[in-house]
Amino acid sequence: MSRWKPDARGRLEKAALELYNHQGFDATTVAEIAARAGLTERTFYRHFADKREVLFPSDNPLADTLADATAAASVTLPPLEVVAHALTEAAPILEERADLARQRRAVIAATPELQERERAKLAALASTLGHALRERGLEATTAALAAEIGIAVFNVAYERWVNDPDQHALAQLIRETLDATRHLTAPAGHAAANDGGSFTGQETGA
Amino acid sequence: MSRWKPDARGRLEKAALELYNHQGFDATTVAEIAARAGLTERTFYRHFADKREVLFPSDNPLADTLADATAAASVTLPPLEVVAHALTEAAPILEERADLARQRRAVIAATPELQERERAKLAALASTLGHALRERGLEATTAALAAEIGIAVFNVAYERWVNDPDQHALAQLIRETLDATRHLTAPAGHAAANDGGSFTGQETGA
Repeated sequence: MSRWKPDARGRLEKAALELYNHQGFDATTVAEIAARAGLTERTFYRHFADKREVLFPSDNPLADTLADATAAASVTLPPLEVVAHALTEAAPILEERADLARQRRAVIAATPELQERERAKLAALASTLGHALRERGLEATTAALAAEIGIAVFNVAYERWVNDPDQHALAQLIRETLDATRHLTAPAGHAAANDGGSFTGQETGA
Repeated sequence: MSRWKPDARGRLEKAALELYNHQGFDATTVAEIAARAGLTERTFYRHFADKREVLFPSDNPLADTLADATAAASVTLPPLEVVAHALTEAAPILEERADLARQRRAVIAATPELQERERAKLAALASTLGHALRERGLEATTAALAAEIGIAVFNVAYERWVNDPDQHALAQLIRETLDATRHLTAPAGHAAANDGGSFTGQETGA
């Protein structure tokens, strides 16, 4: 499809995702992935510890980006704006690999064991974000809460993004989901029943 | 400690949590749990599939309570108030077993594999809650977001509760954490940097 000739790691990743989606994660062997990529099993193991690591790489650039962007955000920003800044800074990492991200999410959605791992990864991101907020001087419980809310927002925005037929930018969906969160958490009386703000391309309400 | 003579299941649970905390989850065998409870291994397996199920029972009353309370909440309540209602209705289930809950959380905190399982359990609760909100007529993304935020609030409140030397009621901590969430998500200008609202018994700020 692409005119860009991918490197060994990229070819293995592409082959693995195609096989996981066609025949299931559990049914796919490393030998099949390597063969489909036109490479040896030995090359596979130079890049990945096992077939699960294709989906959950040990060197996750998202965590570093979240931590760095949190540290670098203006000291005058309120906590949730810091989180929003960090999440939108991290979005391009995922945008660059949109096709792979969509295939990856489909594999995970089909495999309960992988869903559990994905949740653990999100929890680790929340923990990284919470730590970076504490480093800015935020009290521990508030930092944990802002981080958990940020990751909840990210998870909902990410799910919309991988399923979005109109291919909105992830950063835009993160901003919208954050606005919807503000709307949802507005003091009682300001928010009506069954009104959660409006999402791009969606009707609100029953 | 208690004047109430626990049943076999309760004795096994108490023995297991003590052993997991004293010698580690991985190092504990079912034979040791049964012996400490003064029961047979066969009795253990009548109550639990394995030693992990002591910590994560398959029949989780929390999920049912969240779903029922969500369905029963007044139709005029805004989404996050419905979630707050459901979480505070579920709180007594945990309050009743406060000592066990604290021991359980300590075991989980010490064992990465169990943390992953705990996160998956929270994700399943978010999914249950999201489903119950959709049944009320809430649009799917808003329902997912309200559920994720609710479970983020619950997780932070629960963590405070198990570590709270002053033993505040869980329902109170859930309400406080929800208020802190409203404060955190208030439009920019209303919330100051490093201000996340005040938590019981804690100073805010660096």
